[in-house]
Amino acid sequence: MIEPRTLKGFRDLLPAQALARERILDIARRVYQSYGFAPIDTPALEYLEILTGKGSDETDKQLYRFVDHGGRSVGLRFDLTVPFARFAAQHVAEIGLPFKRYHMAPVWRGENTQRGRYREFMQCDFDTIGTTSAVSDLETVLVVHDLLVAIGIEKFSVCVNDRRVLTGVLEQLGISDCATAVLRSLDKLAKVPAEQIRAELIAIGVSDSKASRLLEMAGLRGDSHEVLSLLEGFVGTSEIGLAGLAGLRGIVSGSVAAGVPEGRVLIDPSIARGLDYYTGIVIESFLEELPAIGSICSGGRYDNLAGLYTKESLPGVGASLGLDRLLAALEELERIETTTTPAEVFIVYFDSNRLEDYIRIASAIRAAGMNVELYPEPKRVGQQLKYADRKGFRIAIVAGANEFETGTVQIKHLASQSNLIVDWHGDMHILTDAVHSALQADQHGHHL
Amino acid sequence: MIEPRTLKGFRDLLPAQALARERILDIARRVYQSYGFAPIDTPALEYLEILTGKGSDETDKQLYRFVDHGGRSVGLRFDLTVPFARFAAQHVAEIGLPFKRYHMAPVWRGENTQRGRYREFMQCDFDTIGTTSAVSDLETVLVVHDLLVAIGIEKFSVCVNDRRVLTGVLEQLGISDCATAVLRSLDKLAKVPAEQIRAELIAIGVSDSKASRLLEMAGLRGDSHEVLSLLEGFVGTSEIGLAGLAGLRGIVSGSVAAGVPEGRVLIDPSIARGLDYYTGIVIESFLEELPAIGSICSGGRYDNLAGLYTKESLPGVGASLGLDRLLAALEELERIETTTTPAEVFIVYFDSNRLEDYIRIASAIRAAGMNVELYPEPKRVGQQLKYADRKGFRIAIVAGANEFETGTVQIKHLASQSNLIVDWHGDMHILTDAVHSALQADQHGHHL
Repeated sequence: MIEPRTLKGFRDLLPAQALARERILDIARRVYQSYGFAPIDTPALEYLEILTGKGSDETDKQLYRFVDHGGRSVGLRFDLTVPFARFAAQHVAEIGLPFKRYHMAPVWRGENTQRGRYREFMQCDFDTIGTTSAVSDLETVLVVHDLLVAIGIEKFSVCVNDRRVLTGVLEQLGISDCATAVLRSLDKLAKVPAEQIRAELIAIGVSDSKASRLLEMAGLRGDSHEVLSLLEGFVGTSEIGLAGLAGLRGIVSGSVAAGVPEGRVLIDPSIARGLDYYTGIVIESFLEELPAIGSICSGGRYDNLAGLYTKESLPGVGASLGLDRLLAALEELERIETTTTPAEVFIVYFDSNRLEDYIRIASAIRAAGMNVELYPEPKRVGQQLKYADRKGFRIAIVAGANEFETGTVQIKHLASQSNLIVDWHGDMHILTDAVHSALQADQHGHHL
Repeated sequence: MIEPRTLKGFRDLLPAQALARERILDIARRVYQSYGFAPIDTPALEYLEILTGKGSDETDKQLYRFVDHGGRSVGLRFDLTVPFARFAAQHVAEIGLPFKRYHMAPVWRGENTQRGRYREFMQCDFDTIGTTSAVSDLETVLVVHDLLVAIGIEKFSVCVNDRRVLTGVLEQLGISDCATAVLRSLDKLAKVPAEQIRAELIAIGVSDSKASRLLEMAGLRGDSHEVLSLLEGFVGTSEIGLAGLAGLRGIVSGSVAAGVPEGRVLIDPSIARGLDYYTGIVIESFLEELPAIGSICSGGRYDNLAGLYTKESLPGVGASLGLDRLLAALEELERIETTTTPAEVFIVYFDSNRLEDYIRIASAIRAAGMNVELYPEPKRVGQQLKYADRKGFRIAIVAGANEFETGTVQIKHLASQSNLIVDWHGDMHILTDAVHSALQADQHGHHL
């Protein structure tokens, strides 16, 4: 006998988790599509040279790689950006530009498995490529906003910065040559005390007064218009810095035009994001109830997506939903349904002579748009109801010979254990309407 | 520069294909859930011993396998049945029985790439385990039926047989000892001339008169009740055969109770299905317009899902939708949308001073439940409309300074090139209602 087990760092999704994930994916799909993003898919396996082309030492080390039956060196994708770059370079003539796509799929990284990190996880990316338009920057912010609203999160903020503003500030301070190290330090401001960052900056070679200016700039918060005004003083006459500020102004005014409530989209001058990759707007988003869990949906603008695979310059902007992080947060906030069935209605298989009646009722309820399960065996009613209760069905329909003879059924609310007798006289419309009403009366709170 | 290419036998899905696949997956999900099947997921990678435990020489040869960073022998799953068996054995205490699950996910097989077969493809399985109930057999047939209806296929048949009937017939003929070879031959009846099968049967050692009886039995078609009556004569007194007939009678009467139109569920005594795995009902389904493409959704009942991983006996019944085969069929029947955008409404970015107005209009249309894309750059109108037309948007909204001053917009039907002027006077409800009506007037035929 073989021991049934999953590999270290991998996991099964049981129904409650899989249902929650499906609901989020469905919401993401609807929001992405509402802005005209179209789905694509790429293979899990790629030529190794495609995957290692741009990879850092870290991703190279984590890559699942092997030699296939045909002697080709191949690897499992570790993100969706590299396959998208390859895809865009390969199909650009056919897809045309600008091109808006989303891609929701698993990726694999053989990293150390700690703090709830898995070696297989889903990414949900969306990007607009082939345009440097500020409209696409704005839409990226709006999609992140709409996504969090659609998921049912009430308190969150979408924090926005522009790498060009940071470049401009460094230019004005005359410390452009150590930009990467400085930005890497500033980016930690949310997690690390300011004094530690000051020490880091000084270690990099930034003077004490310039470190103070940087910390002051990165610490600006509050009303977006005020923050933008104050940033003007830091950017001075830097052209790139001024361009960045104009971009951020467009995000603020565009968000108002799109009806985003005040305080939802914030300017945060500390955000740089780790990757050297970003060149314009950068976006992070946080749940106010769980800021420590980190950014739920992040992204930004980049200059050239696919420089490794084509000479055609493909600028773009996009973001990625951290699905597993979001699911962990929703679980912690008790916002995830614990039901393990997608069906609301349970039919007790009570009288084995009445199977065809149960089938008829189940079909009618299904045709009326509800999900319904008929227990497959005429076991004891108590045992069937226990099964229904454990799974999280909301109502159960109980009918035996007596009920069928008098044209009634019993509708049982499983949570409250209260009963309702419905006189339906064999009129299926009366029955399905009654079931529908019973479900409405039993409405849950807002859960995913 | 690295050549952007996919591995042999692998492919990208561009938007039109990815949209079609998403629509089918969404329909399958809804139908599965309407019967109470819950989703699960399992890792793409499993311990090699899990995957090779039951595998035939063929699947073993096709398996993508390697040694991971931790020195473990691992493989990519080649189907969803083996991972489900491992999953069920591992989690049976937690999931409880009976257990109804669906699983829609990619699998990998390093097989020869011919006739549109790929090395990575999606499977969409659903199963009920932990019960031998005839209700679950019936529901499996009904799910296959409802799925094909929901996909919008009008002419199809769900063909049903029971392995026990075949066993009974062979028992009566006294040729049980060569059952596997006989069934493998009979199963080809749809594709191969009867005389060739007769020759095969005789080569196996079946007498000429018994071969005639077998071919007569396997060729029975038509009204289900008649076929069942005639099968009685072949099954005789065989207990297992009679049990199989009783099962098929339940499928016929249950389908009527569930409201399945006559002629949709057929008894087909030739169906045995290749695998030795099945022990009861077996199901195949065919499109009447494209029978040659083979069964679109197939399955059956098995005795013991997870015997390799647990001593607990897990009988079950289920089926699997051949997603890629279905998509190929729908494409051949020209039933797939060729649009490459999920959005219906396109907004021309006409006047660069009016960006915020376009954003406001886009947000309102989106809030009214429609998908809308604003072109990201104020390019020539003709160029923008060409983009919209190529992607398959249905209507375009055109408004410049003049229109905004007079409180009007132009709604253009992209297919007919006809225009409509809407007086909305800045009242967003009037505008979104007009857009909604324009879309309704532009309704496409039934496409996926």
